[in-house]
Order: sequence, then structure tokens, then C-alpha cells
Amino acid sequence: MNTAAPIRFYFDFSSPYGYLAATQIDALAARFGRSVDWRPVLLGVIMRSTGGKPLTEVPLKGDYSKHDFARSARFLGVPFQLPTPFPIATQAPARAFYWLHERDPALAAAFALATYRAFFVDGRDISSPATTIEVAVETLAASATPRRFSDANELRGELAEGIASAAIKEQLKNECDAALAAGVFGSPFFIVDGEPFFGADRLPQLEQWLTRGGF
Amino acid sequence: MNTAAPIRFYFDFSSPYGYLAATQIDALAARFGRSVDWRPVLLGVIMRSTGGKPLTEVPLKGDYSKHDFARSARFLGVPFQLPTPFPIATQAPARAFYWLHERDPALAAAFALATYRAFFVDGRDISSPATTIEVAVETLAASATPRRFSDANELRGELAEGIASAAIKEQLKNECDAALAAGVFGSPFFIVDGEPFFGADRLPQLEQWLTRGGF
Repeated sequence: MNTAAPIRFYFDFSSPYGYLAATQIDALAARFGRSVDWRPVLLGVIMRSTGGKPLTEVPLKGDYSKHDFARSARFLGVPFQLPTPFPIATQAPARAFYWLHERDPALAAAFALATYRAFFVDGRDISSPATTIEVAVETLAASATPRRFSDANELRGELAEGIASAAIKEQLKNECDAALAAGVFGSPFFIVDGEPFFGADRLPQLEQWLTRGGF
Repeated sequence: MNTAAPIRFYFDFSSPYGYLAATQIDALAARFGRSVDWRPVLLGVIMRSTGGKPLTEVPLKGDYSKHDFARSARFLGVPFQLPTPFPIATQAPARAFYWLHERDPALAAAFALATYRAFFVDGRDISSPATTIEVAVETLAASATPRRFSDANELRGELAEGIASAAIKEQLKNECDAALAAGVFGSPFFIVDGEPFFGADRLPQLEQWLTRGGF
């Protein structure tokens, strides 16, 4: 039984620290009987409101961050390769996520992690709708349990239409606005029972928070 | 015997995460037979080169950061109170540090930690030369071993002259330039055997680095 609220997890598919957090958060949540509410956002949209800019473009900090992405991955024992090009626009996978989420939430969560791995492990260009759809199809094929979609062709056709629809574009826009309204300014960003945590390096504090019910 | 190179520790006296790191780094270094080379810098000078701005002034991130300073202190079990005013100019304690360091390095390191505590625990205005000098005098009084200065009056008089001197102003300027040249863009920033670590939240990686000689 799981009556506790899910951990809300905001991230951008082009965020290396978002990827690192994504490899950890499901197992962490499970240790506390929590589920994870994955919420992709567009950092580009958020940064237009906050005045931020891509980390790797900041003088000095940019070079350091590239070094730190890889070292932090090694620290966590997670595979990582900075892709080229980087950063990329992530409308396609973010829209695909929300479209899938309305139809099959578990498939959407698996797709999110698979998309991160496609980009940060395999170097595939997830900014492309075609790649996004292929990652969704691969995720469906890898699923051990029956899913909402009966086969790859059905998913491929419906998802291609879905991510091009005005409705899903509007939904992603609303998700970014809602994230900003919730105080989200970067990726990864977690909210646990109202408590905000920014950064993959705050996972130890998030875990402590769940262990002690706040501190 | 300690032949390993010291851990270089760059920080600004107005940096909350610098304070948190300062409460941890001596004990961490000692576990590996290392010493700590404390290097105060002026983040304001560094940010003129990198285009950064004070964390607490960034939209959304600013409010979060104030919350995170206090939570991170509780996480580490360290006392903390965000002072008013904040942030402050830190020329006075930074100059005092380098002046002391030339004369009594151990006293300078103790002064640095005492200055952080004066600001982030006791809320004293360490931007003032008078407060800076009093903190130095208190540090001398609390010292268990004989120091370079025979009494408070001697230190008070010499330090007042020292931090107003053109030589010490020039030295601090040179330290900031050297820090920038070494890639330092924020506080706290550590360099261990050539490896850079930014942020109090990188201390676990720094510790892993020392444990395994890199990873």
C-alpha cells in the first residue's frame, strides 16, 4: 500500500544532472514506498523567466561543468558521455512524454529514462521527433508487461500525430508555466511533500528528509 | 610526516556554502594527512570576469538558496543564521587574512574560521575593519599555543595598519587574479592535486578522490 504522495521530479531531457538524478530517483523513492511523478520541462522556457543561461556557456564554470558531469557520473557508477551537439532542444521528447503519460503512465516513465540513456549514453539526437518515436517504440518492445499499445506500428503512428498536435504543445507550455509557478528554476528539481530540492547533489538531503520526515 | 600537497581552498567570507565547507575541510583533510591552504577571494571581482551575480539575487533561485543554506547547515549539523545585511563586501577580512598569513599561518587559518562563525553564527558585520580586527584579537586570545603576536594590543595596532596598506590591497588583488587564472569561478572551490571541485556539495567527491587517488 502506498498512500504517501509521489516525489515530483522536474527535469529537462538535455540536462546531464537531470540524467544522473533520473538514474537514482526510482530506487530512492522505492526505499520509502514512494512513487515518482516525472515532469519534463523546457529549461530554455524557464530561463527566459529567470535570466539563466546554459551552464556550459558560462565562462570558466562551463568548462568545469563538463568535467564535473563525467566525474559525477563516475562517482555514481553511471555510464555517461557528453553528446554532440549539446545542449539540444527537447520539445520532441517532452511532448512525447506527456502524450504517453495520458495513455500509459508506466510506459511514459520508462520512456523518460530510455530517452536520457539514448542521449547521454548512446549519443543519439533525441531532439529529433523520429528518434523520439523510435525510443518510445524500443521502450514498448522492452516492456515486460502488456501495455496500452498493442504493437510498434500502432504506437509509432499515434505518437507521430500526438507530438505534432496543438493540444500537446499547449500541454507542455502549461507544464512549464506550472513548474515556474512551483518555483522550479533548474534541472533536476524535486518537490517532496512541499519541500524543494535542486540538483542531483541534493539527493542525499532528499533521502534524509524522507528518512526523518524533515530535518 | 606529511609530504602530500595541501588542499587548496578558495572561498569568499560572504559565501554561506563557503562557510559550510570551512566547517568540514580541516577534519576531512586531516583524515588523509593533508593540510588546507586557505585562500580567501572576492567573488565580486571574480564575477566581473565571469558575468555571475550574487546567488540570492537570481529570480526563484535566490529564494530557494536562502532556504537551502539553512537546510544544508542542518544536514551537516552546523549552526547557521543568514545575517543582515547579506551579502557584504569582504575586503577587510580577506586582507586581514593575508596579512596574518604572512606572519602566522596557523593564526590566519583559525581567524578565517572564526570570521565565518562571527558572520554566519553570531551575525556580526565582518565587512567592517574594526570587527575584523576584533575577531583577529579574539582568535589570538583563544589560541592554545604561543603565537607570533605577544598580546592583543600589538596585534590590534599592527593589523589596523596592515589591512590599510597598499601592499596588502595589491596582494589581495593578485590572489583574485591568480584564482581566476586557476579556473576559480565560485565559492567554495577546492583544488586537490590539480583536480577542481566546486561547491560544499562536492566534498563527498573530494573525499572519494583522496580515498582512491582519483576515480
